[in-house]
Amino acid sequence: MGDKKKKADKAKKADVQYVYYFGGGKAEGSADMKNLLGGKGANLAEMCNLGMPVPSGFTITTELCTYYYANNRSYPPSLYKEVKKALQKVEVDMGATFGDPKNPLLVSVRSGARASMPGMMDTVLNLGLNDTTIQGLIEKSGNPRFAYDSYRRFVAMYGDVVLGLKPEGKDDIDPFEEILEKKKHDNKVEFDNQLSVEALQELVKEFKNAIKEKLNIDFPEDPEEQLWGAIGAVFGSWNNARANVYRKLNNIPESWGTAVNIQSMVFGNLSDDSGTGVAFTRDAATGENYFYGEFLMNAQGEDVVAGIRTPLPIDELKAKDPNSFEKLMKIREKLESHYRDMLDIEFTIQEGKLYMLQCRVGKRTGLAALRIATEMVTEKLITPDEALMRIEPEQLNQLLRPIFDLKEKAEAIKNKRNMTKGLNAGPGAACGKVVFNAEDAVEWASKGDKVILVRIETSPEDISGMNAAEGILTARGGMTSHAALVARQMGKVCVAGCGSLLIDYKSRTMKVDGKEFLVKEGDFISIDGSTGEVILGEIPTRPSEVIQVLLDKTLDESEAPTYQIYKQIMQWANDYRKLKVRTNADQPDQAANAVAFGAEGIGLCRTEHMFFGEGKIGPMREMILADTVEGRKLALAKLLPLQREDFEGIFKAMDGRPVTIRTIDPPLHEFLPHDGPGQSELAKQMKIKPEKVKARVEALHEFNPMIGFRGCRLGILYPEITEMQARAIFEATVNVLKSGQKVMPEIMIPLVGHVKELKNQEEIVRKVASQVMEETGISFEYLVGTMIEIPRGAITAAQIAEVAEFFSFGTNDLTQTTLGVSRDDSGRFLPDYVAREIYSKDPFEAIDQDGVGFLMKHAVEQGRLTRKKIKLGICGEHGGEPTSVEFCHRIGLNYVSCSPFRVPIARLAAARAAIRDGSTSSACGCKGKCTGACKKKKKDGKKHKKGKK
Amino acid sequence: MGDKKKKADKAKKADVQYVYYFGGGKAEGSADMKNLLGGKGANLAEMCNLGMPVPSGFTITTELCTYYYANNRSYPPSLYKEVKKALQKVEVDMGATFGDPKNPLLVSVRSGARASMPGMMDTVLNLGLNDTTIQGLIEKSGNPRFAYDSYRRFVAMYGDVVLGLKPEGKDDIDPFEEILEKKKHDNKVEFDNQLSVEALQELVKEFKNAIKEKLNIDFPEDPEEQLWGAIGAVFGSWNNARANVYRKLNNIPESWGTAVNIQSMVFGNLSDDSGTGVAFTRDAATGENYFYGEFLMNAQGEDVVAGIRTPLPIDELKAKDPNSFEKLMKIREKLESHYRDMLDIEFTIQEGKLYMLQCRVGKRTGLAALRIATEMVTEKLITPDEALMRIEPEQLNQLLRPIFDLKEKAEAIKNKRNMTKGLNAGPGAACGKVVFNAEDAVEWASKGDKVILVRIETSPEDISGMNAAEGILTARGGMTSHAALVARQMGKVCVAGCGSLLIDYKSRTMKVDGKEFLVKEGDFISIDGSTGEVILGEIPTRPSEVIQVLLDKTLDESEAPTYQIYKQIMQWANDYRKLKVRTNADQPDQAANAVAFGAEGIGLCRTEHMFFGEGKIGPMREMILADTVEGRKLALAKLLPLQREDFEGIFKAMDGRPVTIRTIDPPLHEFLPHDGPGQSELAKQMKIKPEKVKARVEALHEFNPMIGFRGCRLGILYPEITEMQARAIFEATVNVLKSGQKVMPEIMIPLVGHVKELKNQEEIVRKVASQVMEETGISFEYLVGTMIEIPRGAITAAQIAEVAEFFSFGTNDLTQTTLGVSRDDSGRFLPDYVAREIYSKDPFEAIDQDGVGFLMKHAVEQGRLTRKKIKLGICGEHGGEPTSVEFCHRIGLNYVSCSPFRVPIARLAAARAAIRDGSTSSACGCKGKCTGACKKKKKDGKKHKKGKK
Repeated sequence: MGDKKKKADKAKKADVQYVYYFGGGKAEGSADMKNLLGGKGANLAEMCNLGMPVPSGFTITTELCTYYYANNRSYPPSLYKEVKKALQKVEVDMGATFGDPKNPLLVSVRSGARASMPGMMDTVLNLGLNDTTIQGLIEKSGNPRFAYDSYRRFVAMYGDVVLGLKPEGKDDIDPFEEILEKKKHDNKVEFDNQLSVEALQELVKEFKNAIKEKLNIDFPEDPEEQLWGAIGAVFGSWNNARANVYRKLNNIPESWGTAVNIQSMVFGNLSDDSGTGVAFTRDAATGENYFYGEFLMNAQGEDVVAGIRTPLPIDELKAKDPNSFEKLMKIREKLESHYRDMLDIEFTIQEGKLYMLQCRVGKRTGLAALRIATEMVTEKLITPDEALMRIEPEQLNQLLRPIFDLKEKAEAIKNKRNMTKGLNAGPGAACGKVVFNAEDAVEWASKGDKVILVRIETSPEDISGMNAAEGILTARGGMTSHAALVARQMGKVCVAGCGSLLIDYKSRTMKVDGKEFLVKEGDFISIDGSTGEVILGEIPTRPSEVIQVLLDKTLDESEAPTYQIYKQIMQWANDYRKLKVRTNADQPDQAANAVAFGAEGIGLCRTEHMFFGEGKIGPMREMILADTVEGRKLALAKLLPLQREDFEGIFKAMDGRPVTIRTIDPPLHEFLPHDGPGQSELAKQMKIKPEKVKARVEALHEFNPMIGFRGCRLGILYPEITEMQARAIFEATVNVLKSGQKVMPEIMIPLVGHVKELKNQEEIVRKVASQVMEETGISFEYLVGTMIEIPRGAITAAQIAEVAEFFSFGTNDLTQTTLGVSRDDSGRFLPDYVAREIYSKDPFEAIDQDGVGFLMKHAVEQGRLTRKKIKLGICGEHGGEPTSVEFCHRIGLNYVSCSPFRVPIARLAAARAAIRDGSTSSACGCKGKCTGACKKKKKDGKKHKKGKK
Repeated sequence: MGDKKKKADKAKKADVQYVYYFGGGKAEGSADMKNLLGGKGANLAEMCNLGMPVPSGFTITTELCTYYYANNRSYPPSLYKEVKKALQKVEVDMGATFGDPKNPLLVSVRSGARASMPGMMDTVLNLGLNDTTIQGLIEKSGNPRFAYDSYRRFVAMYGDVVLGLKPEGKDDIDPFEEILEKKKHDNKVEFDNQLSVEALQELVKEFKNAIKEKLNIDFPEDPEEQLWGAIGAVFGSWNNARANVYRKLNNIPESWGTAVNIQSMVFGNLSDDSGTGVAFTRDAATGENYFYGEFLMNAQGEDVVAGIRTPLPIDELKAKDPNSFEKLMKIREKLESHYRDMLDIEFTIQEGKLYMLQCRVGKRTGLAALRIATEMVTEKLITPDEALMRIEPEQLNQLLRPIFDLKEKAEAIKNKRNMTKGLNAGPGAACGKVVFNAEDAVEWASKGDKVILVRIETSPEDISGMNAAEGILTARGGMTSHAALVARQMGKVCVAGCGSLLIDYKSRTMKVDGKEFLVKEGDFISIDGSTGEVILGEIPTRPSEVIQVLLDKTLDESEAPTYQIYKQIMQWANDYRKLKVRTNADQPDQAANAVAFGAEGIGLCRTEHMFFGEGKIGPMREMILADTVEGRKLALAKLLPLQREDFEGIFKAMDGRPVTIRTIDPPLHEFLPHDGPGQSELAKQMKIKPEKVKARVEALHEFNPMIGFRGCRLGILYPEITEMQARAIFEATVNVLKSGQKVMPEIMIPLVGHVKELKNQEEIVRKVASQVMEETGISFEYLVGTMIEIPRGAITAAQIAEVAEFFSFGTNDLTQTTLGVSRDDSGRFLPDYVAREIYSKDPFEAIDQDGVGFLMKHAVEQGRLTRKKIKLGICGEHGGEPTSVEFCHRIGLNYVSCSPFRVPIARLAAARAAIRDGSTSSACGCKGKCTGACKKKKKDGKKHKKGKK
């Protein structure tokens, strides 16, 4: 930086206002100045401006924090004057003087960053006390116990936070705590509040001595010195280790800085007509519109939390202090209508006078978020688009997934039945008897048992067992492992990658590494797929109301209040979203579920999953083991009617909605048994030598099957497979058309990297379509397109679009190839990468927008260049992940496709994306479509859009 | 197409000239009209214009061919008039009339495409003969035998080519041949030319009858009908099956079409002062400047080829027909100075008069190409840049690789000792005793045996054995398999992927599938890595002169004429090329070889190959088996001095040239034994339980190791490995600096997809560098950069360049990930893909410019955007492949790096790339740097460039 610029900056700095006053019914700041004043400071100012009783004080801005760190932890000279001036105003407001021996003003010094960082930074209370002012406090309060208790707390807090007298090691005891404990022991009392005034007085001295002894510092008696010490400590705490870690975890930039709030103290523990409390303006757990809070009379804030005395429900304040209660109720109403949200407040009553110490938007459960948002629209507090922006799409899961009886679960945990924890791979709660293989799962379930399928890892052969089970538990595999992927698609509860499980298939038992649990086949376990918990024994579960209404049809919607919430949110989501939402489904029942959840088509129907079904794996294996084209064709002829039937079922379930069917994709060896006994049995069935099966499995072995002989490569070398699949699709189309239903098949060729690959397969598909039309005399519409799932496909999208009528981004494989990361092997380094923030999120969960996203954007642009109306979608797992859905909206896809149970989440995410980028607008000019809640009448859509940021 | 446009097109067509006349010393066409007239037609016209004696004729253009196919195999009306007019001119020129009973003009009708397609399309000779005109021919020639022989040949040729009387099945005999054989048998003669005039006369009739009988067609007696039939047949032959296959193989677009040449017949078999011959203006085998050709008197063109009579060397024509010989010598000189190239000519002498029938640029061997190009510069026929453009870089291999004694090889093949054929993976000739494992190779070689290492496939553990062997033969693996890759790097002869080999390690024998060879350990075999041939027994080989001069130093350059050619070409290449050429080398001797070949640095030094060396694999395995960081560090400490020593050797060999060293890249399991005995032995060595080794190997198993836990991912999770490697590099740097040599190390981090990965490793490297500088008190320069080898690296190159001081494109892996093709598994479909022209070339041989190339270009642009002077290179196998080198030049890389023996090829390819894009230019305005051979004097470089296409 040049010298001139430096000087200019300094001069500028001199003019900057670093201190913002609040008190006496008005404030220099306001709620929209959070960036400058921090959350706490801005809201204190706002409450002040709203005429609420806030103890006077002032906020030193976050800009000062920035200055502090940029200037070697020093302040601009102007600050001292500003603080002095503000402090004088507080003195006037509060009728007390800082450091005055008779009537001392005491203050709190608190941090307050832009985003809430609870407990991460430091606070000093009761500042201003010393051996002189303590007398004033005694006199003023008439309560020497209270005064000395405040004093000893202040000295300890200041000694710790500002002067730095802390425990030395991890296991060391806090030095002030040590002295206190000794004092209690010497005085033979159990609790702090049983100590005498004299004892407290001694503590103050002993604390000061300890500071002198250990740090060689005299405790500062000068209140002004105390104040500046505390201010410096709070700014310093912005960069303490805890705060740094928290910021990293929560993506809070270091550059934001913290503000410091200096506020006059009020005391809830001054007398019996004093008290303190915390409250939510609505129930933060359920969302119910009910003033929910607790208070204690003659107590300080920390007493409410500490749990020594049981706080009372806020309702009872009405009896104890009707005046304060009435004021509080009015404040609640005023705050909600002003902030238009549910708030979390703190208050103190000092000698019958109510003070507001804090207000902020309240944290809430997913359920509460959903209920509050919808009810606030009904109350015309907010508009529907605002409601949607306040709900995290994932919170919808709380309305969809089966749930445990919460009391029973708590009981089980209390009884130490919680065995271990894995990945929350398929949300919801499940309970059942443990089985260790898919056959048992099917058999036991057919006898009416509820089972949990426990596997080291699952494979496509386990699908029927997974379907029969209530839930799936695996020892290996990540969030996108086979188990997790299939479970989510089926809507099954799944805990995956539970590394501490030691599963022994032979003895049909499992243990937990380092613990004493031994679970045998048939024992009950309960798994929570929303948290990853694995619990021994039976915890009752039930399906959510939404599932009961929509899928099970066991509940009428009028009796299902949470379904009403779901319905309302989905309706609004439909009003706003631009993206269509499809589903990934291979079976008619999955398809029907998805439609019930609002799916507008199938974005990915994997034909190979069908091959594992009843009676199909046989001919499939026969085909793979065939030596000649003729042999393959014979086997394929057996598969044809079975596949056709599958497609008919799906077409019927989708009732005219588009169905994207992918031709065979996985490497052929996945269909063959890899173990000796399995190979022998297959050989027996096929009446060939076991050696032949073994040899074929070995011949099909690949070093890197993910990028091996699969996808369209199979159909190009074995065109008879594509032919059979196309024929099955089109014959099913004709059959369903004959039954009077509509059908819209879209044939998708996988793993295309070169337009000539697609051309090759497209020609086969179109040839078969013509044949079927000719044979049946019935014509039908269909599309041929491709998955874009390897970089070359995306790169050459302009060429590929010459043949493809649609692209569907297969972002699972596109992520693997673009990043050069095998999903199956990534467990060795990817978690570490995410922990080190090399990737901020697991790229298999949320689209890597810089890398994979670049290719997607390129393909969208290039594809549209060639074929303006090309249909564009995504069918990778990312299609149900909110940030990815938003990205898809932004780059202009036509639809996303995800597993059935994520369809509602994707619909909401799509609506939020549209609202966020302002791409929806209504007549009144509101962001998004307005339902009339907005009071604007002018039709100035454009103007409105311009204004938003 | 709209009706109006159709009409307009037709109107246009009417004006087009479809027929170009040549004869009487001038022609309407010329040599530069090849696209329109085809090669043959254009060169006939050119010779005509040069005043050479060419039998008159005319060419129907390739545009007519296009018209013919676009219009349902019909001609524009104007053609008939044009042909008639041209034919009349021929009649005037030749003093004979088409169809005239007394003095009939006979013509040939021949195809002639833009590119030579020898034997692919049809030809009709002696057209114009019928039962009337035959009399005129008899009279004119006074030779009834000649006349009837010509007639029966014409009828058979026409019956086959135009009328389509062909053998019915593959094994069927030609119908005309059948009649002829019967005739010879009936007349009890052995050869055609022993048949009497009467017999020939009968043949004509019998041929015609056969046509009538089998096709129900009367043989056309009308010469005009004959002519149009032949023209149609030639145009039709453009799309026959043979021609289609040939075009596909040679990348000739179908749209080019063929021309048709109609030329008056001259007869070399008319009399004893007639004759015919073919010649090359220089020796096509050796390149020697010597008129090389053969002729026969009283013979037709086909007789020279047929081998019934032995042709005479062209020199002897001087005695037989001094006049024609003198003319021919003048023509030779004139043609060479006109075409400025070596030509392949055909001539006929009719009754003492010389006619030129064909001239075209002659095909030649690689050696001849090199010699002719260099000598023509000396002769000032061409400029050096033209010389370089006439040599295919791969032809240099003929000067570099060991060669078989050609006579001995021919003898071996004659004796059916050629066993089988594989891929020509490492060019050159090798001969030795068969061994089946690396240890034996080393042991036998140490005893003085020459050995060929035969393996099913090779792995890094085989390296020492490969080094000890003369050549490597594998049953599995492609052109870029481990064996092929390492062999080329070592300059070893290699035949890979020889699928028919059945190798049995147990019995130490190999067989060839379906043949009777049984080769035992110790038997001699010879392998030709330039052709892929595997031959039983010993065929003597010798290193090329270039190798003897440059590497072996067993020959003085003055005694090595082919070395002189090499030297000259390399010198010119250096004058023109912009790209630097480096080498991929891991060992000092490889590095030294590369420098001798002109390498300007090392572009890729793979440190992991070093770990397989003597004494290194032990500590490496110890490191991998260690459970703790401390354990790993202990093992790494043992590796440090060994690696340091390796680097010292390389730095010394490179003598100050830049050396790019890649930190550890392959998955760790590659260093562990995968077989039971190997694991047991290792366990013994390490004094741990075999189970532990086995467990570790299993734990390291990956589904897709290519995109698994490797590259920088290792160094990020085990920073101590990177630390050790950086320390070894920098300590070696200091040691070599101390010895007075210069060192320029460039540390390259592999498999970077995210800038944060590189940042992580860069920080470690820089930290160690500072430590070493501080410890030794010696400072040194170095660079830190990365390989761009996964798409995300290329995509985010702008970010990566913030840290990377250089990029080196790892196009092997970049191809694998961009195309989603595992190199190791691609054998199942990639050869088929290339055969179907999905990819026109194997993308692992030549860069896939549309896909991988797009990412490279993007990375170059983005990288330079961030860091203007970033160093850019390529170190994938493509770095030595000419089309890829040209691509690298075009996108602006600074260097290519390839295996040592490909350095000369890369240098030449780089020069050709620079010449082709006109990026070098000289004062005189010639393309490229001019050495004065050019006669232009004007300094109009720009104008000159503009003109070229």
